[in-house]
Amino acid sequence: MRILYHWPLDPLSRQVRIVLGEKQLKFQLEPISPWKITDEFLALSPEGRPPVFMNASTTGRTVIAGARAICEYVEETNSKAPMLPGSATERAEIRRLCDWFNHKFCDEVSAYIMHEKVEKYIIGHGKPDLGALRSGRDHLRFHLDYMDWLLEQREWLAGAQCSLADICAGAHLSCLDFVGEVNWKDHPRIKEWYQMFKSRPSVQPLLSDQLPGIIPPRYYANLDF
Amino acid sequence: MRILYHWPLDPLSRQVRIVLGEKQLKFQLEPISPWKITDEFLALSPEGRPPVFMNASTTGRTVIAGARAICEYVEETNSKAPMLPGSATERAEIRRLCDWFNHKFCDEVSAYIMHEKVEKYIIGHGKPDLGALRSGRDHLRFHLDYMDWLLEQREWLAGAQCSLADICAGAHLSCLDFVGEVNWKDHPRIKEWYQMFKSRPSVQPLLSDQLPGIIPPRYYANLDF
Repeated sequence: MRILYHWPLDPLSRQVRIVLGEKQLKFQLEPISPWKITDEFLALSPEGRPPVFMNASTTGRTVIAGARAICEYVEETNSKAPMLPGSATERAEIRRLCDWFNHKFCDEVSAYIMHEKVEKYIIGHGKPDLGALRSGRDHLRFHLDYMDWLLEQREWLAGAQCSLADICAGAHLSCLDFVGEVNWKDHPRIKEWYQMFKSRPSVQPLLSDQLPGIIPPRYYANLDF
Repeated sequence: MRILYHWPLDPLSRQVRIVLGEKQLKFQLEPISPWKITDEFLALSPEGRPPVFMNASTTGRTVIAGARAICEYVEETNSKAPMLPGSATERAEIRRLCDWFNHKFCDEVSAYIMHEKVEKYIIGHGKPDLGALRSGRDHLRFHLDYMDWLLEQREWLAGAQCSLADICAGAHLSCLDFVGEVNWKDHPRIKEWYQMFKSRPSVQPLLSDQLPGIIPPRYYANLDF
């Protein structure tokens, strides 16, 4: 039995859900609030943050914490639908972009916008700070320009095939889209890429996630937006 | 011909140097100042930050940016001295810790201390902010406790063998040690681990790095400190 401990609007948790979906592996979702970590969850994973993946059988259990570690593990142990396709050099470009989105993009965009618009609301820390929100939005424009530049040269972010790089980027953008923060109009090339991403069966389940009090824009779940 | 574009006190650049050393690959070092990125370097790597690895031959060249992408690439293409040894589950634990050190530790400790004590000095932004320095030091204590807890159970951070997890952690600690910020006395277990790490031939070249105006403590390069 596979269980993924996740938080629905956490881009890192979303990446793992999509990768498990791409691999067509069955799993249960167990929601974890990053702001209310239980002792039970800490005992499972001392890092104390989602995503955590558990595969339990009668002979024992495997517990893996952290999106990147889980995705590489799932990739290594399941040859179906490779998420790191191509040569060693092509895989290096995929991994470079995974780091770019999970760290540079995350620190400069997601951390600002998701904190101001979602986390603060959930933990009752008041209204978004407009200066911080503006910073996140400014950084987002720079990052979208970079994605545009990549997609000028490639069908998918790291090359000719969909890879873990697209899943990382798509997971971040899907969370920002949930709070209406992606200006698709000014980026038709990214919109086209995101439509291809969104139409993958592995991504569909994420589009029906609900969060009390935070309503995504109407177009959020539409494939044609 | 292999070239590593690096900055001597950048923990990410240091990781790649050590991995290349472990694999006994010959390479040239090309110093890059993260604060003075040239157009030539940007043309090589649009990310515009070290480390960048180039392998050029008469038939073409491979350019890879980002510590994690380079280390995984070097690991995939060179079977000598595996840096991700063991089973898929053991590799997952190594990768989890690489992320932990390169992101959580980096954001909470290195970013504060190295910025205040090194970057500000180099770019002429005045004296360290004592509040920020104190935050970095507080976080460092927490992280050292976590390392202590891991090393209570394991000889190396991720298990029985030296791995990329030790290289990531050791690279960060070696930079903090350069500016005298690691309290070895209170952490004899970590000191013992760091002595083993420091004595590896791959780590030795880093101990003679010099930076104008910043003098490491006397014990920095000593194996017995």
